[in-house]
Amino acid sequence: MSEIASRTASVAELAEALIACPSVTPAQGLVFDCLESQLQPLGFAVHRFVAGEPPDGPVENLFAIRKGPEGCRHFAFAGHLDVVPPGDGWTSAPFAPERRGDLLYGRGAVDMKGSIAAMVAAVRDIPEHAGTISFVVTGDEEGPARHGTIALIEHMREVGEIPDLCLVGEPTSIDRLGDTVKIGRRGSVNIWLESQGTQGHVAYPHLADNPIPRLVALLAELDALKLDEGTEWFQASNLEITDLEVGNPAHNVIPAGAKARISIRFNDQHTGASLAARVTEIAERHGCLASPIISGESFLTQPGPFSDIVSRAIEAETSITPDLSTGGGTSDARFLKDLSPVIEFGLCNATMHKRDEAVALADLEILARIYARIAGDALRA
Amino acid sequence: MSEIASRTASVAELAEALIACPSVTPAQGLVFDCLESQLQPLGFAVHRFVAGEPPDGPVENLFAIRKGPEGCRHFAFAGHLDVVPPGDGWTSAPFAPERRGDLLYGRGAVDMKGSIAAMVAAVRDIPEHAGTISFVVTGDEEGPARHGTIALIEHMREVGEIPDLCLVGEPTSIDRLGDTVKIGRRGSVNIWLESQGTQGHVAYPHLADNPIPRLVALLAELDALKLDEGTEWFQASNLEITDLEVGNPAHNVIPAGAKARISIRFNDQHTGASLAARVTEIAERHGCLASPIISGESFLTQPGPFSDIVSRAIEAETSITPDLSTGGGTSDARFLKDLSPVIEFGLCNATMHKRDEAVALADLEILARIYARIAGDALRA
Repeated sequence: MSEIASRTASVAELAEALIACPSVTPAQGLVFDCLESQLQPLGFAVHRFVAGEPPDGPVENLFAIRKGPEGCRHFAFAGHLDVVPPGDGWTSAPFAPERRGDLLYGRGAVDMKGSIAAMVAAVRDIPEHAGTISFVVTGDEEGPARHGTIALIEHMREVGEIPDLCLVGEPTSIDRLGDTVKIGRRGSVNIWLESQGTQGHVAYPHLADNPIPRLVALLAELDALKLDEGTEWFQASNLEITDLEVGNPAHNVIPAGAKARISIRFNDQHTGASLAARVTEIAERHGCLASPIISGESFLTQPGPFSDIVSRAIEAETSITPDLSTGGGTSDARFLKDLSPVIEFGLCNATMHKRDEAVALADLEILARIYARIAGDALRA
Repeated sequence: MSEIASRTASVAELAEALIACPSVTPAQGLVFDCLESQLQPLGFAVHRFVAGEPPDGPVENLFAIRKGPEGCRHFAFAGHLDVVPPGDGWTSAPFAPERRGDLLYGRGAVDMKGSIAAMVAAVRDIPEHAGTISFVVTGDEEGPARHGTIALIEHMREVGEIPDLCLVGEPTSIDRLGDTVKIGRRGSVNIWLESQGTQGHVAYPHLADNPIPRLVALLAELDALKLDEGTEWFQASNLEITDLEVGNPAHNVIPAGAKARISIRFNDQHTGASLAARVTEIAERHGCLASPIISGESFLTQPGPFSDIVSRAIEAETSITPDLSTGGGTSDARFLKDLSPVIEFGLCNATMHKRDEAVALADLEILARIYARIAGDALRA
């Protein structure tokens, strides 16, 4: 895409260029070339780098910055160029963007190449003297995400470019563009539970030690836990038992071991470590082992000046007052919140991760204008 | 084996001939030819037949009878010629019987070709006028056992040859030959439990229905059940949870279904049907499905004249007073008890189903004498 094209292209055209570059996680090469070609003409210094080793790497990342006057504020747009696998059953080819009626179809249309395109378009409306703007874009948000935004944050710290505020372009809208903004996310911890016993014949239980009753008692206790009642901004933390495994085909055999897995989504009354310790203590009381893996901590950007900026921008362009939510899954905001206050806002998520992912063409233009208002106000704040 | 050989062979030689015929379940052909050649010279009419269709058949069975005078009593020896797979690590070839020191090694030495050989030898000492003696021998006791002793019982009913008493030659002795006789067995029922739900994302549990907590609550209740306190002749009934299965590799997914399996060994205070109904009622209360398969009902041959005959025979040959037990697993006695009072007695079971299965050569001769006393007394009873 030429410089002129990027300065005059519609948001849909920018999005189409990105969608046309297949970029199932981990995204690399072409799709980053495309974004780089859109940002350079707008005055951005683009730094691309690869992080990590197999199995979770290497991952390509892009940090682009257009610096404002000395001492100005710094606003960051963050997101990802990788997409989930398209799967089967698409009406048109998933990586051949196609407009049909009012919609633009293609993998990544809403999650989140459409948002990235809206960010690029938004920047065109913001004069350089308004402040510093950066793009924090990874090629692995949908995958293990160990060498994506984490590596970008490390790079930004190294070069001393810490934003004052950060907006992540995840598709947070539900029914209409603008109806939902995420000001936080719950944390997530998965815990593997294991009970060891001694194999034997069911007819001679005194010669065996069945590991299953201990695991069942542990799971019953965990399932009955009430972690909290929820908070002003968070729903109650929730524990789900997600797997059971023994794998004993023999009807007359008491097995030697039994396993289970739980997943906890938790609010800001807990940390991954506090929950891991609590479950481990209960597991040990039942003679079981617990092996926790913390996927992310909870975070909350307390409603205030930043969320007001976002809400006002949405109201101005859509007449909708957004809900401030902390629901749903995790995103890279869980990492970025260590740099600066972070809020997530983007397109309607009804088709994300599904076949025939599509975005309303009109929403792309509206989102670009909302993003421009947010960035402009954030730099003035 | 010639007629003369069978009339003069030692019990060990008879056993060796049987062990030398490989007969992993379902046994057929050669090993039955061998037993037939041992029985025919002793005046037995041998009827061999095949029962059942795949997958649990066909199974070869043998019913041999030597009739006594009109109106005499009928005593049956029962057993099986099939053996469990030998597995690895044998010192000598499992189907090449080998005497080393005081022991005879080979798969089936104690379970139960050695016992069958002792039965054959025992009959040599009983004159034909003493009464009717039969052999009820199947080729599938260790396997599904759907077309073995069940088919033999059907045949005996058809030909009107119902024994007055029956002795099964399972290896019931524990530390010394004669220390344990089985006068009953517990019943066995396996029950598959299933909980159905609705799959979903762990971040949106209100859109899913996790089937695991219902199953866990059901299993906790079943594990806490006290089925009974045991009876004069039976230990308490016992329930074991033997398997758990979900098979959900995705950490962030609430699965659609969960399964478990339990195995109950029960005494004569229950029936398979009563336990199946009780578990089904509890499962339904937890929103789960129960699918029972009854493997066998419990039975008890009340201590009395028959057990006295067996105990006296053992005491006479070994000076040991046997324990009358109902412990352990199931055997074909669970079927034969429908024909007549049944008691199980045989060799020491320490090596059964293991590598280097072996029988003491001396025990074979003693067992033959015990069996001869039992049969003789039973025909006089």
